[in-house]
This record gives sequence, C-alpha cells and structure tokens, in this order.
Amino acid sequence: MGYQAPVNDILFTLNHMLGLAGLGDAHPAPDLDEGTLVAILEEAGKFAADVIAPLNRAGDETGSKLVDGKVVVPEGWTEAYTQWCDAGWAALTGDPDYGGQGLPIMLNSAVHEMWNSANVSFSLAPMLTQSGVEAMEHHAGDALKNIYLEKMISGTWTGTMNLTEPQAGSDLGALRCRAIAQGDGTYRLKGTKIFITYGDHEMTENIIHMVIARIDGAPAGVKGISLFLVPKYLVNEDGSLGPRNDVKAISLERKLGIHASPTCVMAFGENEGALGYLVGEENKGLAHMFTMMNNARLAVGVQGVAVAEMATQHALEYASERKQGRAEGTPKGEMTPIINHPDIRRALMTMRALTQGSRAICLATAMALDIAKSGPEETRREKADRAALLTPIAKAFATDTAVEVASLGLQIHGGMGFIEETGAAQYYRDARILPIYEGTNGIQAMDLVGRKLPMGGGAVVKALISEMRETAEEVIVSNDPALGRSGHRLSEAVKELETATNWLLKTLPGAAQSAMAGATPYLRLFGLALTGTYLARGALYTLQSETASDRERQTRIITARYMAENLLPETAALQRCVTQGAEATLALGPDRLAPN
Amino acid sequence: MGYQAPVNDILFTLNHMLGLAGLGDAHPAPDLDEGTLVAILEEAGKFAADVIAPLNRAGDETGSKLVDGKVVVPEGWTEAYTQWCDAGWAALTGDPDYGGQGLPIMLNSAVHEMWNSANVSFSLAPMLTQSGVEAMEHHAGDALKNIYLEKMISGTWTGTMNLTEPQAGSDLGALRCRAIAQGDGTYRLKGTKIFITYGDHEMTENIIHMVIARIDGAPAGVKGISLFLVPKYLVNEDGSLGPRNDVKAISLERKLGIHASPTCVMAFGENEGALGYLVGEENKGLAHMFTMMNNARLAVGVQGVAVAEMATQHALEYASERKQGRAEGTPKGEMTPIINHPDIRRALMTMRALTQGSRAICLATAMALDIAKSGPEETRREKADRAALLTPIAKAFATDTAVEVASLGLQIHGGMGFIEETGAAQYYRDARILPIYEGTNGIQAMDLVGRKLPMGGGAVVKALISEMRETAEEVIVSNDPALGRSGHRLSEAVKELETATNWLLKTLPGAAQSAMAGATPYLRLFGLALTGTYLARGALYTLQSETASDRERQTRIITARYMAENLLPETAALQRCVTQGAEATLALGPDRLAPN
Repeated sequence: MGYQAPVNDILFTLNHMLGLAGLGDAHPAPDLDEGTLVAILEEAGKFAADVIAPLNRAGDETGSKLVDGKVVVPEGWTEAYTQWCDAGWAALTGDPDYGGQGLPIMLNSAVHEMWNSANVSFSLAPMLTQSGVEAMEHHAGDALKNIYLEKMISGTWTGTMNLTEPQAGSDLGALRCRAIAQGDGTYRLKGTKIFITYGDHEMTENIIHMVIARIDGAPAGVKGISLFLVPKYLVNEDGSLGPRNDVKAISLERKLGIHASPTCVMAFGENEGALGYLVGEENKGLAHMFTMMNNARLAVGVQGVAVAEMATQHALEYASERKQGRAEGTPKGEMTPIINHPDIRRALMTMRALTQGSRAICLATAMALDIAKSGPEETRREKADRAALLTPIAKAFATDTAVEVASLGLQIHGGMGFIEETGAAQYYRDARILPIYEGTNGIQAMDLVGRKLPMGGGAVVKALISEMRETAEEVIVSNDPALGRSGHRLSEAVKELETATNWLLKTLPGAAQSAMAGATPYLRLFGLALTGTYLARGALYTLQSETASDRERQTRIITARYMAENLLPETAALQRCVTQGAEATLALGPDRLAPN
Repeated sequence: MGYQAPVNDILFTLNHMLGLAGLGDAHPAPDLDEGTLVAILEEAGKFAADVIAPLNRAGDETGSKLVDGKVVVPEGWTEAYTQWCDAGWAALTGDPDYGGQGLPIMLNSAVHEMWNSANVSFSLAPMLTQSGVEAMEHHAGDALKNIYLEKMISGTWTGTMNLTEPQAGSDLGALRCRAIAQGDGTYRLKGTKIFITYGDHEMTENIIHMVIARIDGAPAGVKGISLFLVPKYLVNEDGSLGPRNDVKAISLERKLGIHASPTCVMAFGENEGALGYLVGEENKGLAHMFTMMNNARLAVGVQGVAVAEMATQHALEYASERKQGRAEGTPKGEMTPIINHPDIRRALMTMRALTQGSRAICLATAMALDIAKSGPEETRREKADRAALLTPIAKAFATDTAVEVASLGLQIHGGMGFIEETGAAQYYRDARILPIYEGTNGIQAMDLVGRKLPMGGGAVVKALISEMRETAEEVIVSNDPALGRSGHRLSEAVKELETATNWLLKTLPGAAQSAMAGATPYLRLFGLALTGTYLARGALYTLQSETASDRERQTRIITARYMAENLLPETAALQRCVTQGAEATLALGPDRLAPN
C-alpha cells in the first residue's frame, strides 16, 4: 500500500480553515512564502512516500532486537535515517545559530505528519531527538550547547527522554534515579529508566540522553527533580568521542505495536555511575520538562493525524478495489466495489471528517505556538494561551481519532483486516500507544479541565468559543441548501460546549472530583465542536471562492455537512455526561466496583 | 491474571433482568431446576478458571504452527481439550439420541461465555464443532448421523465450517469450490477455502469438515450451493478410521489476535478429490447454513461478552493495585490506587455497564431461541421472531462492546497496557476479530434493518419496543431518588428508538440505500436502549426485593443510573444519524471520496 502525502489538504487546512493567508503581520512565518512552503511539503511528501514508507511493513515484521548488548534496528533503517538527515529534514526547526533552519512549528507539524504516516516507528527517533533539542535550546548553558546542540539539530546524534521509572509512570514525583555531585560540576547518575524510545541503536555514532533524576539531598517529590544530559559516549572538548559512558539498554519491551521502535529499559550507573551534566537549574527539572511538553504533546497529536490519514488512504483503496455483493445499480451477476455499500460510505466519511478535523486542530495549535514565539509582541501572550488550551485537545482528540479511524479501517477490510500482511492491523496496533504516551488522554483531559479552562478566569476558553460561534452563525447566514442542517447543528454543538464549559468553571473550585469525572467526555465534546467548526470554515471558503474547483467545493461541503449532521449530535450527549453524569460515575467505591 | 467466573451476575441477569423465574410454563428449560443450573455454572466457572485460563497467555505467545504439514497447537492444549470433553462439557446441548444432554442454549451461552473469557483461541474448537453438530442435526440423513454425530457431540472429533474463498467473503454466491458426483451418492470436492478455524490439528483423531461447494452443473449464484461433509480421515461403517482423505491445511494465517487458534487455508482435492457426502438437499446449502447462522452469530456475540468481562476484571484488578498520583483523601506523601481517579472510575463504569448489557442481550436471545424450540406451542413463533430480531444486535453490539471495553481496559493500564506480557493488549487484539467474522457488524446492521425490522410488518420490533417502554415507565413511577434521571433518560432512549424505527420502516421500501446508510448507528441505538432497559430491570428488582443485599442493591442501581445518565444520551445523536444523516453519507461517490 503506497502513501500519498496529503499536500493539498494540509495547504487547504492552513490557508482556508485556519486563515493563514489572511494573517498579515501575525503570520507565524512571515519569511516563508507560499511557494517555498509548497515546495517543502511536496519534497517531504516524496521523501516520506519513497524512502520511509517502504520500510514500514518489514520493520513491523522484524522489529528491533537486542543482540549482544546492542540494539539492532531493521534493515535499511540506518541508510534511510542518514539520507533523511543529509537532506536537511532533521534541522527544520532548529536554532539557526546551531545549524538549524529556524522554520515554524506549523511547517514541522505538517512534515512530521508525513514521516509518521509513512512509518511511525521510524519517525520516533527524530521526534525524541527534537524534544532533546528543545530542552537544550531552552535550558542548557553555552558550554553544553556548543558541544552537543549542532550535532543533535543535524540529527548526527539522536536524543532520548528518560522520565519513567517502574514505580513512577505519570507521577514523576515518585521517581528515584539518583544524581551524585562529583564536586567538579558533573554528576554520576544511578538508576533504572523504562519505556525509553530509541534508548539504544547503532544508526548514529552517539546518543544524547536527557534524564531526570534527584540530586542527593534534594527535596522529596516533584520539587527535587533535576534534568541531566548523559551521552552514550563521552564527548571531548573538541567534539571527538571519548570512552563509553556507564549507561546501557538492558532489555527491550515486547509491545502491541511500533515494533521497530526500540523501547528500552535503560540502566544508568551499573558501575561507576553514568557521567551527567546538569541542564538548567538544580531541582527545576520538572519545570524544564514542561517547557517542551506542549510541543511533544502536539507532536503526538500529529502522530494521531498521521496514522488516521494512512489508515484512511489504505481503507479507501481497499474499498475501491474489493468487490462483494450488489449495490444500487450493480449489473446482474456482477459484484460491486464495497465502497458503494452505504455502511462502508459511512465509515469512510467518518474517517475522513475526523482525520481532517484532527489535522486542523493540530495545525491550529502549531500556528498559535509559532505566533506566540515570533509573532507581533501584542499577540504573543494571547496565542501562547490559545496554544496551551488547544494542546491537550490536539493530543487526546487526534490520538483517540487515530484509534477509532484505524479500527474502522480494519473493519472495512473484513477478514483480511485481521491478517497482518494486509497492513491494516498494524495501524490499529501502532495507533494504540498514542492515547497513552506523553501523558495519557485521561491526564490530557484533566489538564484541560483543571489547568487550561481556568486560565484568565475562563477568558481564554471563552474567546475560542466565541470564534466558533461566529463560524456557526456564518454557516446559518450563508443559508446554502448544500450545507443542509450544518449551521444549526454547529450552533447547537457550540452551545453544548459553552454549557459544559460554564458548568465546569463553576464546579471546579468547590467540587473538583465532579468536574474531573466529566473531563474525558468534555475533551471529546471540544474536539468534535472544533472539528465541526474547522470543516465548516473550509466549506464556507469554497462557497465564497471563485477559484475552488467543483470537486473541492463538493467534497468540502459534503464533508462538513456529514460532520455536522452525523457526528456533531453526539455533543449534546457529551454535555449531559459532563453536567449530569458525575454523581453516578463516582458513587461506587473500589470495593463495590469489584465483582459481586 | 486470574479469572473469576461471574456466576452471580449471570444468574442475576437470567432471573432478574430477563425474568426467568417468573416464566412458568414458558420456561426455556422446565426440567432444569435452579440448583442444577447453579451447580453447572459453578463447575464450568471452575473448569474455565483452573484448566483453560492458565493456557491463555502462553498460547498467545506460542501460537499454533504448521510443521511438516501438520498443525501443532500450543502445549497443554490437547490435554485440556480432552479433559474438557471427558467432563461432558462438549455434549451440553447435543441431541440426547446421540449422547447429548439436550440442555438449553441459554445455559450453553452462559458456559460458552466462561470458556471464552478464559481463552478465546481454545474455545473456538468447540464453537466450530457445535456449528457442525447443528448442521448435522438439522439436515443430515440418518446414515451420516449414525456414523458422525455422536463423535462430534462428545467432542471426540471436532468440526469445521468451510465457507469463505478468496474471492467470496461475505458474498457466498461468488464461490467456486466444485463437487463432482461420483455416481454412488458420494462426491469429490476440489477447491480452496480460507479462514478455516481449526482446519487442522492433532488434538483429536479425526476432523469433520462441513463444506459448501457447487455441484457441477448447478445454477450460478447462491441457488447452486450445496453442503457437504468431508472427513479428514475416511470413516468405515463400523466407525473405525480409514485412509486419509484428500484434504489438508496448506498454510496458516498470521493474525492480529487469537494466535493460538489455527486459521487455515484448506486445499480440498489436490489429488483425486476430497471424498464428500451431501448434507441435506442439493443446491440448498445456503439455506442449510442459515439454519445454524442464528446460533453461530449469538455464539460470537457471547464471545464479545466474554472478552469484555475478562478485560473488565483485569483492568479492575490493575486499577485497584497500581498507585499513581493523589486523589481526594490521599494522605500527603502517598499515592492512591488509580481506581480513585474520577476518569478511571468513568472508564470502569462504562466497561461494567456495557458488559452487563451485552450479556443481558445475548442471554435474552438465547432464552428466546430455547422457548422457540421447546416452549409452549403458542409462544414458539413469537419467540423465534424475537430471537431473529435480537440476534444481529447480540452479535454486533456485544462484539463492538468487546473492542471498546478492551480498549478502555488497555488504556487504564497506561504504558503497561501496551506491553504484551501484561495481557491487556491480548484482549484488544483478540476482540478485534469478533466484529468481523460470522458476518461483519455492518452486515448484521443491514440484516437488522433490511430483514428483521420488516418482520410482521414491523409488529415484531414494535412489540419489543413496547416492553422497553413499560420498563421505562416503571422506573419513572418508582420515583426513587437513587435512580436519578434514569426514568426520563430511558424513556427518551426508547422514544429515539421508536422514532428511528418508524423512519426506517417508512424509508426502506422506497429508498433502501438511505435506510441502510443508518443501519450501523441504528443497531448501536438499539443495543444501548436495550442495555438501559435490562440494567433498569435489574435495579427495579433490587428496589422491590427484600432479599437483595445492600451491596447488590447499590451496585445495580448505580450501574443502571450510570448507564442512563452517561451512555443513553447518545441515543438522541444516533437517532439523528439515522433519520437525518443519510444524504451527506451517500453524497460523495467513489471518485470524490478519494484524496483531492
């Protein structure tokens, strides 16, 4: 199954759902002209399709293996990674002072989608490296930056993030990894970290681990966590490699999916202790981690879009070719491609609408991050808040979408979907990590309700809802029969969102548990309403545009209408879960939840 | 992870949700007293937990393998299967004239759930054998019955169903397997069948294949299909085994789940042709298959209940033990079991409600089948219709539930859920075949809308809706504050079901495509409303009963209330999908659904 990068859809999303062209001074990347943007997306699309995608199935079959203490990645992996770095893809967003191209997160999100549609396992190496780069850019001193940053930005060395320990998953306050000061400004680290993506491999000559640990004597809990850089091979001042550091992968996890991405258990300091360098301030490790958390969460959301896109393309191709049964108009004695069965149409329309909506939410988040970083001074705070609000939705809604869409795609394949060689099952397996890592979707929902809604006393969320309401009103005013009931459905969805939001803002201070009981349905409600809004904006654009093709107009309008009439009605149900569901949700204690 | 058979929940479902005790003459098994029923369920639960469940994880890891032309099942499989047969479990529902115990389908469904909770892959061998037995009981002549039936009922020989061919999945009219009459009443079969569950193995000394094929010269399409019995080893008239027949497994599929269940590609007649015996009438094979289709579909629905139950037990245990973060009342410096987080509570309540509802729907179907078979003459037709109506809902709703619940269960495990050794991932993989085989859930939905709703001019479905309305009214009348908004929510759900039903009945004759576009949401709407109804009946019983324990009362009431307040609101959205969603669902043709 080939991959065709959705360049047009990404451009349409940026320009016509998110209004990129009309942003003027507030453009997230004023120096990036449309032609360059298109050229980069097309080149990335080709690279993803031609170089990375062909490695996907075999990588899943082979997996990465730990052989004689070294992690062996699947065949062709190293060559493709080297080619990817050589073509400059690693350095896209990096700091230009260290060889990066300083391009916007928006663009990076778009190409990150392509790498991940082509091959999630492959793309995790760059993704984790990027997190390391961000930690370094924000918090490391010049001495560390000068030695490590250029090599990491260029992809010459990959990076890892070492957070989780067996007893400390989402709760980092519980972690135990020790850092012992050596008196010369360096530290020796001792401890075990689990779930370390690309914790070891031979694709690059060095690996730079970002590790959180407790300096001996530090306060208990999250206030005693510091961030360290621990290289696999020590690096001399001239940049050449020194001896091996005291850190190694001691086992690989056998996982449901992303088989080719080595998930390592890492042992730091089995002997003299792993030599580490403090990044940023002592005991500020958690805050430093949070700096890049938003970007990393967005990146996982984009992985969700990527898997949903690929699963949709795959299912669409299968449904167009596989013939079974008869549909209206099938000649006697013949079978029809299953795409003509209404039930298959429904599945494909759902896949299409949710994928496009998730993409729009993620790209909206990326644009907000870009403007917050480099837009006009007066808009930065507002856009930072917008990005903070959207991030948990982008992460959770897009990754839930990935699981849902991959499952629908598998179902469209019938019995063949259950057979591994078809490939549909891999999306279903790979997708399933996305709602879990980088903070489970439950945690995202709690973040949205507990931290993001109260921002500005509710003003941040209300500003977004107000923009959504304007779109709904525009649809109603347009009164175009092709849009069916879209205006009213979208308007209702925004009202449900508003009702749920007001209830949560009111309930949170006095009854946090009741508010949190509705966090997950609230996040889905928000994601659906945003999807409806963005798809409607796309439809409105095509109605008003003189340059949109008939095909573009029809597909945008019908997809928006499908979303509004078939998927937005769920928002009323979700609002009730939030505002009326908490009591029954919380009533049974642990002893009563157990079987009778 | 141990398995604890939900004996009490099954008994509660039968007695208090489905009113078994009050059925009097219409009891599905008048000779089966309560004590015997309980004893059988408890024994089965022990066998499932002690003998079958321990083989599950290792079986998944090892899988079945094709070695030197023979299928090798995992270690311990053959011994457990033999023990299972020796204990009499195979013969539960079989015809007493051939050694069966003639027990009701209701009871068989209950124990079938247990075998499948313990180990889906293991339980597929008996499940397919049972389909073969039913085909034989209904359609084979005495000569065949006398040779084969007793051995199949006792489990001494297993059975298989050979329907699918590469070009003919759900569309059996397209199949090509040939049967050549030999002039002596026997046939030689030639052709390839795929997806044959337990098509080969060495657990028993013989395997009896039920095969559909076309007798040379038969009409094209479904009217030219006949059913044959093809033994792996020919059987002499005295019952002893003769030479090997010309049929063999030529490869095994590599599947997403149920790894230990060998899914074979079967070659019939690579040499002289596989010797086969006609079962039933020439060219009536499809009708003969449909005889047992209802039971097989129900059996798959029960598999869904089984996986959902096991995933729920597993997640509940993990959530009670795993400590992360703080909740209301957690002492400072300590972490709380995650079951105290509201979002985990919501997931567990959803799992519990959907599992219990699916179980009730399946057992209701089983009871209807039993009464249709052996109840008072005047009720048989009505109950047969009821079973026909419920069957596609039981199959599709319970298996969709299995996938949803397994996914929630995996999510509760966080990162550990993605690691295979934890076991949560296996449920997610195993569950995924259930919405596909024995007719995809899309086909079930089309069957429900296209064939079942019109039964009796709509009278069959309306009678059920009317019973559901009575329950809703009872809840409203009870006016018990513990039930919260349950009465109104259930009443609304039944109204939504009625609205959607009426729309479909009206639309179907003139615009079948539009009706079919809503088939899947309609089936879910029906399943949710039934779940709400059955859980409410359980709650009402505990409110009125003087013998129900406080614990029983509280858990039944809260679960029913959770269902009503949190999951039933979706029915309004589904009704809109059905009655207002078809136009947008069908508007984009194949060329427009493809990427822009």
